Amino acid sequence: MVYISSVAYKIAILGTGNVAWHLAKELENAGHLIAHVYARDEAKAKKFALDYFNASYGNSLDLAHIEADIFILAVSDDAIEELASSLKLPQNAIICHTSGSKPLSELGYTITENIGVFYPLQTFSKGKSVNFSEIPICIEGENQTTIEVLKALGESISHHTQEISSQQRKAIHLAAVFACNFANHMFSVAANILEGKQMSFEILKPLIVETLNKSFELDPRKAQTGPAIREDLKTLDLQHASLKEEPELAEIYRLISQHIIDSYSN
Amino acid sequence: MVYISSVAYKIAILGTGNVAWHLAKELENAGHLIAHVYARDEAKAKKFALDYFNASYGNSLDLAHIEADIFILAVSDDAIEELASSLKLPQNAIICHTSGSKPLSELGYTITENIGVFYPLQTFSKGKSVNFSEIPICIEGENQTTIEVLKALGESISHHTQEISSQQRKAIHLAAVFACNFANHMFSVAANILEGKQMSFEILKPLIVETLNKSFELDPRKAQTGPAIREDLKTLDLQHASLKEEPELAEIYRLISQHIIDSYSN
Repeated sequence: MVYISSVAYKIAILGTGNVAWHLAKELENAGHLIAHVYARDEAKAKKFALDYFNASYGNSLDLAHIEADIFILAVSDDAIEELASSLKLPQNAIICHTSGSKPLSELGYTITENIGVFYPLQTFSKGKSVNFSEIPICIEGENQTTIEVLKALGESISHHTQEISSQQRKAIHLAAVFACNFANHMFSVAANILEGKQMSFEILKPLIVETLNKSFELDPRKAQTGPAIREDLKTLDLQHASLKEEPELAEIYRLISQHIIDSYSN
Repeated sequence: MVYISSVAYKIAILGTGNVAWHLAKELENAGHLIAHVYARDEAKAKKFALDYFNASYGNSLDLAHIEADIFILAVSDDAIEELASSLKLPQNAIICHTSGSKPLSELGYTITENIGVFYPLQTFSKGKSVNFSEIPICIEGENQTTIEVLKALGESISHHTQEISSQQRKAIHLAAVFACNFANHMFSVAANILEGKQMSFEILKPLIVETLNKSFELDPRKAQTGPAIREDLKTLDLQHASLKEEPELAEIYRLISQHIIDSYSN
């Protein structure tokens, strides 16, 4: 194995959004060199490159002359395919995207054989620091060299770097929709119910936190509580009926309750 | 107002479960006296009363001679009505239950006029200490004296004691089903999806925690993310199709996504 995790890579960052920023800062802190910054908007590339990294910058897609080992495409999901197909890279360069939902193949196979995915499984906000060492980094690569380099890069900033296939990444994305997007919508529904009776969502926060703690400690499937798992049909009927003015929500209530009952009835 | 929050009450606890135990310990720590413990099973009452409180105990429903100001029914929801109807209490005693879902009226109006609800909005586990000062305590009372006494009792252990009507308590219970029970089920669904592709739920925990942090910081309705709120129909279709072997789950996916779209489309 040529690469070890203590090696310092020269990195080009394509994109100037939250993922690009947090990742570039963290990689620099770990001893890698941010060599070049690309953005469609040259002013953004300049600000990003000079304010933080003393890197070269530009909006040119011809990056064949850029001295970098790894080109990281940290752009929005829908921009990956087109951008990748228009790039010129140095020979043997490695290129990876950072998306949870796009397959490896979006990078195409013409510019280089060394295509990969470097997906930090976290949500990033401007100006809010994150503890990268706890963030799972999902690695995928077209060949062994790419996998080893991206793994070494991941391990230089996180204790949780692992190889994940495109199929697995799809499953992670779907799981995150349930566990994050849908769970958050359940909080929104609760907030609306409480405000409808002149109360604030605040009142529920300690219970939500404790529920989450138990769920993480035990496993969510061992921590399920409530009228559905108890098969308390009287409460289920009463609560369902109380939602009659919001038929969509009533149906959501009925279906999730039924799914809980069915999941635990064996 | 006769009662102030620094007054020490004599309290009888009916029930020996998790709520009874955590509440009795906390009330004693706050300077109140646990005077008597009732349980249907006398051995349990004895253990509870003598191990922790040096209180009298018994399985007799005739409590007319017990010197206590407040009788707290910390029993399971379905036991409240029958137990309350069978009790004999001292004149002018206050009796309250601790349930989130049962109306005040379950206590009946024959044994005393001073009926109330003292509902700590939290889930309690055996052997796991809780920070009562942050727990909302929901107070309801049939008359002003009862409300004032129970408020003073609540304020002696929590900074978040408030009067909450039975109708509001119903709304809290429904909101908690969405925000706690259903959100936890979303975690379970995610765990199953991940394990189906040889991954562990662990990988998603940092993202869930960060999502919750953002949701609490901003308000869940300002923190919603994901394909539904972006109206990313391509991803919605693909993910929905990937669930075709679990039609119940596919329908839950479709309905929640639609509800998110409808909630934010105006």
